[in-house]
Order: sequence, then structure tokens, then C-alpha cells
Amino acid sequence: MTGDHTFEDQIANRLANLCKPIGSLGDLEQVAARLCEIQKSLLPVTRPRHITVFAADHGVTCEGVTAWPSSVTGAVVDVMQRGRSASGVFARELKCSYEVVDVGLIAAIGEADSAVINAAKRRGAGNILRIPAMSDAEYEHVWSAGATRARLACEAGNVLLIGGEMGIGNTTSASCLIGLFTGSEVDTIVGYGAGIDENALIRKRQVVKSTIERVRAIGATSAKELACQAGGLEIVALAGFYTEGARLGATLLIDGLIATAAALIAVRIDPSVRDRMIAGHRSTEPGHLAALEQLALFPVLDLKMRLGEGSGALAALPILDLAAAMVREMATLDELKLQ
Amino acid sequence: MTGDHTFEDQIANRLANLCKPIGSLGDLEQVAARLCEIQKSLLPVTRPRHITVFAADHGVTCEGVTAWPSSVTGAVVDVMQRGRSASGVFARELKCSYEVVDVGLIAAIGEADSAVINAAKRRGAGNILRIPAMSDAEYEHVWSAGATRARLACEAGNVLLIGGEMGIGNTTSASCLIGLFTGSEVDTIVGYGAGIDENALIRKRQVVKSTIERVRAIGATSAKELACQAGGLEIVALAGFYTEGARLGATLLIDGLIATAAALIAVRIDPSVRDRMIAGHRSTEPGHLAALEQLALFPVLDLKMRLGEGSGALAALPILDLAAAMVREMATLDELKLQ
Repeated sequence: MTGDHTFEDQIANRLANLCKPIGSLGDLEQVAARLCEIQKSLLPVTRPRHITVFAADHGVTCEGVTAWPSSVTGAVVDVMQRGRSASGVFARELKCSYEVVDVGLIAAIGEADSAVINAAKRRGAGNILRIPAMSDAEYEHVWSAGATRARLACEAGNVLLIGGEMGIGNTTSASCLIGLFTGSEVDTIVGYGAGIDENALIRKRQVVKSTIERVRAIGATSAKELACQAGGLEIVALAGFYTEGARLGATLLIDGLIATAAALIAVRIDPSVRDRMIAGHRSTEPGHLAALEQLALFPVLDLKMRLGEGSGALAALPILDLAAAMVREMATLDELKLQ
Repeated sequence: MTGDHTFEDQIANRLANLCKPIGSLGDLEQVAARLCEIQKSLLPVTRPRHITVFAADHGVTCEGVTAWPSSVTGAVVDVMQRGRSASGVFARELKCSYEVVDVGLIAAIGEADSAVINAAKRRGAGNILRIPAMSDAEYEHVWSAGATRARLACEAGNVLLIGGEMGIGNTTSASCLIGLFTGSEVDTIVGYGAGIDENALIRKRQVVKSTIERVRAIGATSAKELACQAGGLEIVALAGFYTEGARLGATLLIDGLIATAAALIAVRIDPSVRDRMIAGHRSTEPGHLAALEQLALFPVLDLKMRLGEGSGALAALPILDLAAAMVREMATLDELKLQ
């Protein structure tokens, strides 16, 4: 590596010297380079890894912006705790430790044998069309709850963290945040979420527009103020999770629309958090692209997914595994025994 | 599943009933459906799995169509047998058993401790611009060598097979085959291979055109005749590998340009082989798309890869793992405990 002036040069040299035609591993080389950059290492690692799924409800569901009522959040969390949601199945397949944290379900998952971690102080975010999602104190509480999960995961040895979420109504909240953070036109960022019809989409657009107007009218500008007004409890928990994970040196693999809205909050507060992020996938939710562009993050996969729960990040995880193994383990051209 | 008229209906119902918004897992749902179709099961499996990399040289390299000389084939095979090529690294990462078979290297990997399986009868295919790649007997020999590897892999319990290849010059051979099988314009199917310059690309296009003309002029039309004229030893071995793997009920995960050219041979001879194929990725080699379209196969990934060795199929393998796990293990909507 003599003569390399920067670590970026070292990464580029390493990739160019692997035993293959230059560039022939395509996007895997970009992913490998990003992992090296994040970890400041030519021996990037992706194991052990961990996902926390944060769950909370949203008062805005009463505005008719969702395909399902808020009670579905808790029902899906129940499936999650039994390891049978998409994220649970994927995490098991990928040997990624998995936990679900209630940071604000309307109804707590009450059974004594519940695997769900209860970190809720407030049950359901406020209806952001009309009132703030949460108070300052509630923001601090869920931020800290998210940070705690990242700290525990890092203390347990995990080097890569994924944040997932579950909350009926949270694409509405995420769209408001993305509109507020990026200034994008609302019509270009609001999508069908879990599968609303055209009439509900029209309502959802109007709710997002009116919420953004309400938040702007009261003069909220800081990331914290915007999150308290238009966020969701699980979204703020994710922002705390990312921030603490970054502080502790973890690689952060970001999921889709809601996770990326949370990433916007975290990065606005501390721009260095971005330096530890890699975007797992591009969701079909239109607002996701605006959020990724704001963060200048490039998604690993584009599989037309839009489920949330961290599922898109999990789908990208094995691609990160391969990219990291490539840099660590492939022979270099110098080792080729040419006759 | 009462009332389902076809197995395709059963698959669609199963996917629609999983605990998630319909279609929200995007392409993963298409992959899952394909695995169910191939395996005629709603409990598709992807393990144990196996990759055989077939290696051979090509006389056409003397026409200046490659970035490297034929000696590089053997040098890379040496890296492969030490598990340090891209395919070896990926296979280890994915717990996919791995073997390398010499079906026609110019120089055998001669060391006594070599891990390379020697199945070569002829050392290097003929220069297809001027003479046949191989005789009928040589075709039968390498076909059988490929079939044997598939049979042994299936007998060892593997349910999913990947075929990889290594052979300097084999994108030229594959391009000729794809031109002959699909009738596509040569200019649309010849690419840079491992990284030739513009002048070599012009030569390569001319060589492919002239080879196709030569083969057509002698009236070769059957898949076997075309393969004997313009194929490569490793390409015919791959065709035998796929055909025997399909006969024994394996799921076949297809790699890029060369592997798909081999798939064209196999499917022309026995169309039912296609029913067990899933295309791992779309290569940046332009001829690959024409071959995939001819087979009506849709690639799982598009990561701009163009390395060969089975690397693109291996990159797609964990996506198949997730898709299969999704169908097998996710809860259904009926299990949701709605309040």
C-alpha cells in the first residue's frame, strides 16, 4: 500500500488487486468499498449482527390514511415475538439476533411470557394532523430507549445493527418528516403504504400536506422539534438507536421509508452518524428516494419491497456478507501463478 | 387450499395469505413462487446446495479476442482450488459445497495434492473461428463429465445446484452460441468479456460473426452440432450438468452469459430442463439478456456483475434462501390475533 495518500486510495487499490477483472463484481465492489470506509478497515466484518424492531401506534390512523386499523400493529407484533413475521424469519435465516421493543403500542402485549421488550411511556403518538406526536419528555424517553437497545447490542459484541419498525400509520408520519426535511413536493413523496386505495391516497396526501403546514406554521425547525410534531415514537427510537450505534462504532444497515426518515433525524442532529450508514434497499414508497438522496446514500438492492420491519435491510445483509468476504478472503493478482 | 384448481393458484393463495400486505415483499415473492413451481411444493428448500465450476481453455484466444492469454485459466483454477477465487469465497460464505473440474485446460493442474478433479480428455477446445470446438466423442465425454458431477451432487443430498465456469475466451464461444440459438444481431450480443479494449471488441465481433457464418455454412442446426462447432468444453459440461441435475429433481440456479449459453443447449435438447431453472442475475454482458429472453427466465439480481465462475448465481443464492424461508415459515393472516 506504499504511496497511497488516502484510505480511499487504499480501498480502491485493494479492490483493483483482487483476482478478477477490474470492476467485474459490479455493485458488490461498491458495497465492499462502503464497508471498508465505514469500518476504516480492509478487513470489514458483518458478524455478529443484530436487529431491533421498534413498534408503536399512530393517532393519525383515525384520519383514514391507512389500510388497516391501529389494532393490527399489536397483532403483527404478536406474530413478531413468535419469530414468524417476515423480519423474524429473515433474521433467523441470516443468524441475526432479533428483538422487538414496544415503544408505544396502544395496547401493551400483556402476556407474562411475552418476548416483547416493553419500553413504552406513552401509548400511541398523537394525531399529527392536529397535535404534536409527542412531548419533549416523551421524545427523550423513546430516543433513550432506542439508544439503550443499540448500546446493549454493541456490548453483546454486535458489529452491525439494523433498525426495523412496525406501526400502522407510520408511512404517513415518515412522509411528513421527509417532506419537512427535504422540502420535496408532497405529491412526489406520499405512497400507498401497506396498500390503501386511491381515495385513501388522496386523503393521505391531504393529511401530509396539512400536517406539514401545521408544523411549519408553528415555526418548528430543529430536527427534534420536527420529530416531536410529526414523528412517531418508533421513528424517534430508531433515530436514538442509530445515533448510539454510530457512537459505539457499529455499521448501520438502513431499511426503507420509515427507517430512512429516522436516519434523517439522526443525521440532522449529528452529521457524523451518516458516515456509518449503508442503505439496504430502495423501497417502492416514493418518498424513500427523496430521503436517500438527502442522505447521499445508494441502496444495495432494488427488489420492489415495501414491507418495513427491517425486511429490506435484512434482504441486503447477505450481499454485505459477500462483499466483506470478497475483500477479506479473495486472492490478489500478485498471487496468480502465471506460467 | 380447497377450491384451488391449479398448483399455481395454490402458490398465489399461499403468498397472498402470508402475514404482510399483498405484494409487499416484491421480487422476493416472484422468487418464492418460482421455487414452489420448480419444486412442486409450498415448502421449498435451498439446502444442501452445491456448485461445480467447470474449467477449460479455448483455441480462439489466438485470434486476439481476450484480455488475457489462455495460461490465465489454469492460474485462476489454481486460486480456485485454494478456495480464494470469488466463487470459492462466496460458496464458503453461503455454506455451498464447492468443487472445480478440469474438463479441458491446456495444462493440467498437475500437483499430486491438487483439489481439482481431472475429467479432461481433450486439452483446449479448437479455434472455433476455423475448426470445430470438439468432436462428437469429445462432446459426449464432457457432457457425461458434467452429468456425473450433478449425479454425485444429488446423491450427496444436494437439492440445489449451481454451475460455474472458468475459461479465457469463453465469452466469445458463448456469444457465438447465443447468436446461433437466438438469431440476435451479433453487434447486440458481443461484449467486453473480462475487459478487452475497443480494438479487441471490434475483432471479437468479427470473430463471432465469422464463426456463426462458418457454422451456418456447414449446415449445423441441432443443439449438439452447434455446441460441437462453436461451444466450449466447459459449456457442454455445464449443459450435461444441468440436464442430469434436472432429471434428478434438483433446482438449477443459473449464472451469467456462459452458464446461460449452456442452458440454451440443455433446454434445446430437453425443454423440460427449463422447468427447473431460476436465473440468478443479469450480467452486464449484452448477450446475456438475449439468452435469458429466449429461455423466458427472469434474473433475481441486477448488480452489474460480469465475473462468471458462478459468482452471480451465488450472489442470488441468499435471496432464494430468504424467499424459501418466507413461504415455509411466515405466519398467515389467519393467525393474526386481531382484537
